[in-house]
Amino acid sequence: MDPVKVIEIKKSVFEDNDRDADRLRAELKEKKLFLLNLMSSPGSGKTSTLIRTINLLKDKLRIAVMEADIDSDVDAVKIREATGVESIQLHTGGMCHLDAEMTRQGLENLPAGTVDLAILENVGNLVCPAEFDTGSCRNAMILSVPEGDDKPLKYPLMFSVCDLVLINKIDVLPYFDFDMDKCREYIRMRNPKARVLPISARTGEGIEAFAQWLLDEVAAWKAR
Amino acid sequence: MDPVKVIEIKKSVFEDNDRDADRLRAELKEKKLFLLNLMSSPGSGKTSTLIRTINLLKDKLRIAVMEADIDSDVDAVKIREATGVESIQLHTGGMCHLDAEMTRQGLENLPAGTVDLAILENVGNLVCPAEFDTGSCRNAMILSVPEGDDKPLKYPLMFSVCDLVLINKIDVLPYFDFDMDKCREYIRMRNPKARVLPISARTGEGIEAFAQWLLDEVAAWKAR
Repeated sequence: MDPVKVIEIKKSVFEDNDRDADRLRAELKEKKLFLLNLMSSPGSGKTSTLIRTINLLKDKLRIAVMEADIDSDVDAVKIREATGVESIQLHTGGMCHLDAEMTRQGLENLPAGTVDLAILENVGNLVCPAEFDTGSCRNAMILSVPEGDDKPLKYPLMFSVCDLVLINKIDVLPYFDFDMDKCREYIRMRNPKARVLPISARTGEGIEAFAQWLLDEVAAWKAR
Repeated sequence: MDPVKVIEIKKSVFEDNDRDADRLRAELKEKKLFLLNLMSSPGSGKTSTLIRTINLLKDKLRIAVMEADIDSDVDAVKIREATGVESIQLHTGGMCHLDAEMTRQGLENLPAGTVDLAILENVGNLVCPAEFDTGSCRNAMILSVPEGDDKPLKYPLMFSVCDLVLINKIDVLPYFDFDMDKCREYIRMRNPKARVLPISARTGEGIEAFAQWLLDEVAAWKAR
């Protein structure tokens, strides 16, 4: 296998990120390319969730992944080895988030015209990524059981910008004080429209529901 | 009980945070007040670790806690209810970190002259807090087992600025793929001088070692 492509992305020159993000979304619509922005804390299971999900979907959709990290290429390598789909690493040069222009630099390094679903795995961080529209078609986040059910209280913006909240690591629910009903209620306080799906990237529970959500969203985007 | 004090901290006016942090450290030395800056991802167990530790130390040291969060006062309330020590909530107004001037605003709201050990629980975030010197005497961080042993590879700066790394939630080691030796090796790569202590805030394992580290550091600071 070739080494994973590592892109050192540059700081944006655009001052108005919201306008730039809308421009990127219009380009994605034109190209019939669906972009998912996936956010979470460090270590909540973004990469392992993606591996499970991509393996369910890769015969139905052409998928590529952009792994954003401050350093290392462990995630891009993991995705490619475990799924075989195209996966590139974006180095953010110390930045704690991606904006639309940085996302565009990643997209330009994907094989042109051969992708239905591009997934951006954002930097592990519940604060800054929520503040910058990447130009994605949908935002999803993962909250993992060990982090606790009170996170929507402490990181309100993250929960309010996401269309989908995956609650991961439900296989370890017996070992943690995590109240699923309370967590759903806190999420609803921040964002009544967010869909909530409990999953386990380890056992596979709930992953089919996430895959179906993606299939429906990609189909709806292409039909627009 | 009175309601917990909630401070809406203001953005800094100082451009040179490093100089301002050194100034704050000099003031702390003058006052013989030891400030610990405690950082981690969201949900790694900062608050529960502090509760266990403070209950071991509160008869030996006069302790106060500053809880920094974007929103809510759940942590400050928890600390006060579980330990009885003075605990205030700092609202960062959406900011993803604290700098020295913001930390000073918190310290000014603690009872003057009656504290040996002030603990700043920083915003849950492995990226931005590492970039801003708060003026603390020592930096510590918590990495929790469910986050994975590869975090030092992905968040290098955080590990390189910390004097102490607590590895929390070791009670759930059997349920996660976490290689303690590998994790220690990765931490050493980033910071050969960092002390590493495995702990469980739930069972109390390792908390005495953390408490002893704090006692030694506070004594050394006062003797300087």
